[in-house]
Amino acid sequence: MRTLRIVVSVFLLLASVAAQDVKGLGRMWTFENAPLDMFEKEYGFKPDAAWLEKVRLSSARFGSGCSSSFVSPTGLILTNHHCVRDWVAKVSPKDRDWLKDGFIARALAEEVPIPGLKVQQLVSMEDVTARVTKGGVAGDVAATERNRNAEEAKVVEEAKARFGPGHSPQVTRLYQGGMSMLYVYRDFEDIRLAAVPNLQAAHFGGDPDNFTYPRYGIDFGLVRAYVDGKPADTSAHYLKWSLEGPKDGELVFVTGNPGSTARALTVAQLEYQRDAQLPIRLEFLDRRIEIMEAWVAKDPAARDREVRADILGRQNSQKAFRGFLAGLKDASLMNEKRAFEAAFRAKIDADPALKEKFGTIWDDAAAIAKRRLDLEAGLRLHTPEGCRSLMRAVFAARAMDASLPPAVREAAKKQALATPGTEVAYELEVFVDIVERAKARLGAADPFVAAVCGAGSAADGAKALVAGSRFGDDAFLKAVLGDGSAEVAVDEDPAMKVAKVLAPLMQKEAMADARIKAEESALGTRIGQALFAIFGTKIPPDATLTLRIADGVVKGYPMNGTIAPWRTSFYGMYGRSVEFGNHHPFDLPEPYMKAKDKIDMSKFVNFVSTNDIIGGNSGSPIINTRAEVVGLVFDGNIESLPNRYLFRDDVPRTVNVHPDAIIESLKKVYDAGALADELLGKPMYR
Amino acid sequence: MRTLRIVVSVFLLLASVAAQDVKGLGRMWTFENAPLDMFEKEYGFKPDAAWLEKVRLSSARFGSGCSSSFVSPTGLILTNHHCVRDWVAKVSPKDRDWLKDGFIARALAEEVPIPGLKVQQLVSMEDVTARVTKGGVAGDVAATERNRNAEEAKVVEEAKARFGPGHSPQVTRLYQGGMSMLYVYRDFEDIRLAAVPNLQAAHFGGDPDNFTYPRYGIDFGLVRAYVDGKPADTSAHYLKWSLEGPKDGELVFVTGNPGSTARALTVAQLEYQRDAQLPIRLEFLDRRIEIMEAWVAKDPAARDREVRADILGRQNSQKAFRGFLAGLKDASLMNEKRAFEAAFRAKIDADPALKEKFGTIWDDAAAIAKRRLDLEAGLRLHTPEGCRSLMRAVFAARAMDASLPPAVREAAKKQALATPGTEVAYELEVFVDIVERAKARLGAADPFVAAVCGAGSAADGAKALVAGSRFGDDAFLKAVLGDGSAEVAVDEDPAMKVAKVLAPLMQKEAMADARIKAEESALGTRIGQALFAIFGTKIPPDATLTLRIADGVVKGYPMNGTIAPWRTSFYGMYGRSVEFGNHHPFDLPEPYMKAKDKIDMSKFVNFVSTNDIIGGNSGSPIINTRAEVVGLVFDGNIESLPNRYLFRDDVPRTVNVHPDAIIESLKKVYDAGALADELLGKPMYR
Repeated sequence: MRTLRIVVSVFLLLASVAAQDVKGLGRMWTFENAPLDMFEKEYGFKPDAAWLEKVRLSSARFGSGCSSSFVSPTGLILTNHHCVRDWVAKVSPKDRDWLKDGFIARALAEEVPIPGLKVQQLVSMEDVTARVTKGGVAGDVAATERNRNAEEAKVVEEAKARFGPGHSPQVTRLYQGGMSMLYVYRDFEDIRLAAVPNLQAAHFGGDPDNFTYPRYGIDFGLVRAYVDGKPADTSAHYLKWSLEGPKDGELVFVTGNPGSTARALTVAQLEYQRDAQLPIRLEFLDRRIEIMEAWVAKDPAARDREVRADILGRQNSQKAFRGFLAGLKDASLMNEKRAFEAAFRAKIDADPALKEKFGTIWDDAAAIAKRRLDLEAGLRLHTPEGCRSLMRAVFAARAMDASLPPAVREAAKKQALATPGTEVAYELEVFVDIVERAKARLGAADPFVAAVCGAGSAADGAKALVAGSRFGDDAFLKAVLGDGSAEVAVDEDPAMKVAKVLAPLMQKEAMADARIKAEESALGTRIGQALFAIFGTKIPPDATLTLRIADGVVKGYPMNGTIAPWRTSFYGMYGRSVEFGNHHPFDLPEPYMKAKDKIDMSKFVNFVSTNDIIGGNSGSPIINTRAEVVGLVFDGNIESLPNRYLFRDDVPRTVNVHPDAIIESLKKVYDAGALADELLGKPMYR
Repeated sequence: MRTLRIVVSVFLLLASVAAQDVKGLGRMWTFENAPLDMFEKEYGFKPDAAWLEKVRLSSARFGSGCSSSFVSPTGLILTNHHCVRDWVAKVSPKDRDWLKDGFIARALAEEVPIPGLKVQQLVSMEDVTARVTKGGVAGDVAATERNRNAEEAKVVEEAKARFGPGHSPQVTRLYQGGMSMLYVYRDFEDIRLAAVPNLQAAHFGGDPDNFTYPRYGIDFGLVRAYVDGKPADTSAHYLKWSLEGPKDGELVFVTGNPGSTARALTVAQLEYQRDAQLPIRLEFLDRRIEIMEAWVAKDPAARDREVRADILGRQNSQKAFRGFLAGLKDASLMNEKRAFEAAFRAKIDADPALKEKFGTIWDDAAAIAKRRLDLEAGLRLHTPEGCRSLMRAVFAARAMDASLPPAVREAAKKQALATPGTEVAYELEVFVDIVERAKARLGAADPFVAAVCGAGSAADGAKALVAGSRFGDDAFLKAVLGDGSAEVAVDEDPAMKVAKVLAPLMQKEAMADARIKAEESALGTRIGQALFAIFGTKIPPDATLTLRIADGVVKGYPMNGTIAPWRTSFYGMYGRSVEFGNHHPFDLPEPYMKAKDKIDMSKFVNFVSTNDIIGGNSGSPIINTRAEVVGLVFDGNIESLPNRYLFRDDVPRTVNVHPDAIIESLKKVYDAGALADELLGKPMYR
């Protein structure tokens, strides 16, 4: 009896651990394998084929990394301001700043073509796994991969012929190769700008509020698809606007193109990211931002404009990395990962065939992580970054290195010539900081450190290098690169002396890195296949920037000792602005200040839901069970950053624009009632 | 050379560690030893004697545990709504609910006397340490203490004669006895209610927003001190109202009566709180709230009213305990404590006389903490809580125990009779839960567990006990307690059987607890004296519910990935209300709903500052360097809870009512312009 009881307990433990942690793999379902029975069981709602098809065809991949949806029968497309931002800047006339000031078309003729922008509708999905994997060569990974690549290319070619022009077939590997899907997209390539609000309304709260909630971002943009010079007829596949908007506790779906998740990583791989990769990168970033801010602080009027965008971009990464790192440092997250790994591994080990094929995955991952750990510091710290003379010298050294292939040498020559020669004070500080870090981590005997510093300090070494080198001089550089203008004694140049040490080091470490990456990629494939072998399509594949449907509910969450409301209001937006004295980035743009008395302050701006999203989902529609738009995905809260590694929905949230915010803005702020009416179901303007 | 360098480094390390961590002891300065030179050095502002005296006399201890200030020359006193709340309920007429609906006087005659409420102004401070400690008996702690108590009583008696009626002299021991101060208070005992807003305006956000920020609590109340039946003449000591309000970055002072801090605790004592005391208490509280909520959920209409206030009170403790525990679990806090302790101990050890006297403090603390740890579970789990029959039986067993003193037996008899006999379902669940916990922590052989459960479960044991016992019956209880009505066979009653085991256990453990508490108290005195011996009045004493002045600055802080603004607005308040659908506790009371269009939404409601406060400071004025009221202290943010153990000001903040909120409310919501005008400097109404 006692033995039996123990066996049963262990079994129950494993089963419950596995069930618990399969949840951590997330809810980014493919349309072809959406878990309809689970939806029915969990929510009492089972989408039928017609619902799924309509929703799929109403969704569209937007540009190179965003999502969107058709929201009128006449080709109107809803996405985020931040998805269309660069395009708006590109088509804005010289004498206008549509990015800053917004843009509103008031007739079809006023809509502005956006050359180069492509919107893609997923029209066909076929499982081609059997066909592309039939050329597998037992024991020869490379040959198997070659055959699969070749077969996938054939599948694409055939689909091109079958679907004809205006379509883009692609083979996407799901489950790290466990499945191969042929996805065919209908391409919309005549896209025209209809409306965007002021940048500052879309990006209200700027970098501080980025990745956070409560939030007040009116982050939307409207474009229109044209076919043969006329608004596209999308009457068969568009999402109606919900007149009631989202409701607390309501079931909602996000359809969009999540870019990349890392939920199949092993514990050893996560520990490497936690203990080496992320801390080293953050250290870099923190210090660099500090140096740049200090440099700006000495002369803000002159310098802020110059580097602010650069600093903001780095702060964005800094915030994301901090969020990732916080997740990996959260013991409960790692414990959940460990429990899942133990259960998963036990399942693999329990099947001899699977054990044979996948049993070494975890030890292999640990071994690779260990090698990457040894490589990490050199890879990050052996760099001329910040010192332009040295950057030029490194490229020149490569261009002059007879052991390298001609194409590589030619590319290096071009890079050398494209590098500006004048040193920038704060960049040099960054360089000195890098050399100091290299000294601390790799020792004074490290060849690069020794070459820069000799017996002195990093600062003195860098100073002497810059003062003594002629690489800042364009004529000298050209002569070195052999334009025949003169013979030069380049070997004695102090930058070249360092470059001759640094360039081969970088080359060697880059190659080691590439080898490790290839092994990691192969290992990733094996992990994905092992997961697929155990769980099949019961779990969703990691994100692949292809269309997914994610279920969730509208829901607030516990925050900072209290409750975050499930929605935010215009009251809150104007409040946050006055609370910060209307100072940037909490300033409201002029049209919103002017419309203050017209806006209904009790209408809503943003709301949150538990759907599983990640970068690439920006611009996704969020819909109710009637397939009506109840919002527009634009961000995740700070607590959702670790969802990259493990999906959770207790506190992590998707942040959406509330439909109120779009309609109030169009009608009361921008006098764009016609576009609002089109969203609400009336015919478009002419 | 090398040795010297090491010595210097260690010295610098110790010095810097000590300087760093003295900061952790906080900034609750006494008026008699306010660090004026430090103020000047840090802020460029050195209060003079007149400033200090005026500020001290303008501040007042309010009721039994709050603070307040005189804010007009005619006796008007400003404090928190939550400080006067119970008094308002007490004086509210039967047919009115001033607590819920607010109260506004519009003439002196309308002000409502509050019998029993006392407000105390600190008029004299004398250091009597030398006098009260001169009767010390070397080596005899108890005799020393007796002599000191007697001398302190004499000091108080003499002061009573010296200051005459209307004054309360008290000797307060600072630094756990390192100093004895004679504080003499002028008592104001004719206090009348002038104005309070609706409870829901003061308590907006309820339990969720309690201890948090951003916050929107208009938590003020106005009363007036009368002398000889007329408004007190406070023209010599009142604080003017700041017309400009607080400014970002401004130096501000809080004057008030912080109740209790625990910053002198040793690491071992904190570890005990972290590892045993707080987790066991929280476990209790969590489970009890869970049981009560589940009970309410089954019939909310009937049950919610009955136990909501009880649940809210427990949730308040739960939130505070969680905050304390989070602080103690924060490695950086403990490391800072450890570093301070090491430096402090080294200083004690370096002086032979101090080492002799105080050298064993830390080991003694660890030994006591260990003993308390062993006692903790029994002390908390040996209890009849939740089972009324058993509670009655325990009191009865005590009343019948001939080995106890007659007074104790008499008290037990009264307690038995005061305990209701009818069992309550959810309370019985709590009892079963307690017995289960006792079984898990103390084992099935624990006498109390064995007496309740026998060989069965806690639930069955409790059921049998209640079903079989006659202690629920009032007549039976009275007979047992010997009213002569009947002879009863009490020994066979199942509740009495358990009580005969439980009562002596509880008695024994309560005595052990009392012994440990006495030792802890004596140890606390030694720690305080050791701190005082090293640092003197350069550090502030732990809080003693006596008047302190705390310096700080008005300042926002990093929160949840973004920035908390230093102030919140009416926009934000109305926003939070609509975002929660105006549902309780985020509902705005009717007068605020009606005044929506009159209120200037861009005026401010609350703001934060870095001042060092704790419970007891509620109602304190927060003033600028001109001694003008710029706000009213009413809470701390959630991150400030661990300040109980270690003061920090990076993220912890004091939360204050902004003067805007008081003036807007009086003028626009309550039509109480005359009171607003009095605050703003005009004569009071008649």
